[in-house]
Amino acid sequence: MRFDIFTLFPDVFYPYINTSILQRACAGQIVEINIHNIRDWSTDKHHTTDDTPFGGGGGMVMKPDPIFNAVESVAQGKPDCPVVLMTPQGRQLTHSLAEQFSREPRLMILCGRYEGVDERVRRFLVTDEISMGDYVLSGGELPALVLLEAVTRLLPGALGDPDGAFDDSFANGLLEYPHYTRPAAFRDWTVPDELLSGNHQAIALWRRRQSLLRTLQKRPDLLLSAQLSQQDIDILKELASENNLKIPKGILE
Amino acid sequence: MRFDIFTLFPDVFYPYINTSILQRACAGQIVEINIHNIRDWSTDKHHTTDDTPFGGGGGMVMKPDPIFNAVESVAQGKPDCPVVLMTPQGRQLTHSLAEQFSREPRLMILCGRYEGVDERVRRFLVTDEISMGDYVLSGGELPALVLLEAVTRLLPGALGDPDGAFDDSFANGLLEYPHYTRPAAFRDWTVPDELLSGNHQAIALWRRRQSLLRTLQKRPDLLLSAQLSQQDIDILKELASENNLKIPKGILE
Repeated sequence: MRFDIFTLFPDVFYPYINTSILQRACAGQIVEINIHNIRDWSTDKHHTTDDTPFGGGGGMVMKPDPIFNAVESVAQGKPDCPVVLMTPQGRQLTHSLAEQFSREPRLMILCGRYEGVDERVRRFLVTDEISMGDYVLSGGELPALVLLEAVTRLLPGALGDPDGAFDDSFANGLLEYPHYTRPAAFRDWTVPDELLSGNHQAIALWRRRQSLLRTLQKRPDLLLSAQLSQQDIDILKELASENNLKIPKGILE
Repeated sequence: MRFDIFTLFPDVFYPYINTSILQRACAGQIVEINIHNIRDWSTDKHHTTDDTPFGGGGGMVMKPDPIFNAVESVAQGKPDCPVVLMTPQGRQLTHSLAEQFSREPRLMILCGRYEGVDERVRRFLVTDEISMGDYVLSGGELPALVLLEAVTRLLPGALGDPDGAFDDSFANGLLEYPHYTRPAAFRDWTVPDELLSGNHQAIALWRRRQSLLRTLQKRPDLLLSAQLSQQDIDILKELASENNLKIPKGILE
């Protein structure tokens, strides 16, 4: 999968891309990541990429021409892949949206800065507006790295461990169960007996139960779209009654 | 405000922290950002910070002792500030949560890696679990940078422009209006006449109307908690009727 990222701050990308999973995915040719400096496509001698907003007000707005020039030059014409603008006004990134993007052969990601990009970029160049959540950052660079990592780790072979992404939170519709490692007793806090039992079936059952309990406690909304067996539903009933919690409507019917 | 970040990958932080708003906020002594390598507090000669999970399964789990040692050593005892774990199981970061954190004199942020941290860290050291959204990343480093930036830009003086954060999306409960800059005509696409009129009242009204329209189109849920005047509500009625959109229940009563 090929990523093209358009930014005014290319230098913030390399240290992260050269670390851990993204570095391995590049080395293994699972992804190709190209970082483009929008400033290289500015059209005046001062390499201007932003200007004051029409209508006044504080801040600067990213000019349309360098961005159109950059994207169309790298795409060699009108892009035939998604062109994603990272913006708090977009659809929120989710696991299933990351999965959807991971099936594309190529993705272009546009990082806004300052007050944002000229509206004509949004209307006539961008195909998807993606948000990290209901908060504001100073630019699209961190969101672009988040999207890059969330998508890359879903690509076959990107994680060292083949089961790595499967057990994660959200991948199976539930929150993940608790993890414990050595020492078995740390200060006064010990590891649950089930995990030390060596009984694989008991361990699997404990983990499923914990996963269901956490999801019921913290994110009951996820249960509505999770794949639940009859055993899961029986466990949920027990957990709800033991912990005085409510199972969301629609699960028990 | 003081930030202490605990991570196994300190090097990914510096390039971003040395850029733009975070760099200025550090230089202006608005924030102090300390990056701590958890590995420095490991207790064995191989500097081990992770181990296999009790109960089996893929991946590695971050050991409790180096994390407790790191946090308690930096805090000189039990921390008396929030200790935030970045995890997809937490509460989702929002503008108002960032505001809440921005009123703290100090924040500790813990970055998980691999399959996550030993459950005893979560139960006995961490005070807040914060999520970026319903997707999985390979570690808490990008989320920590996101939290750092979202909080820092709300601190007095952190943005060059005093109104910078006020007009942003979410700050006033609505999505932001469109921005335009030069050229006034780019390809066949021109800037709305109102913005070129020089009439400040007409510009302010156009912007408010666009802000209301966007919020009604993309995020009607935000309208329920936004501060709306009678004029706003009249505009919303017009916009809903012109664009065949529904105003959420609870606004018109």
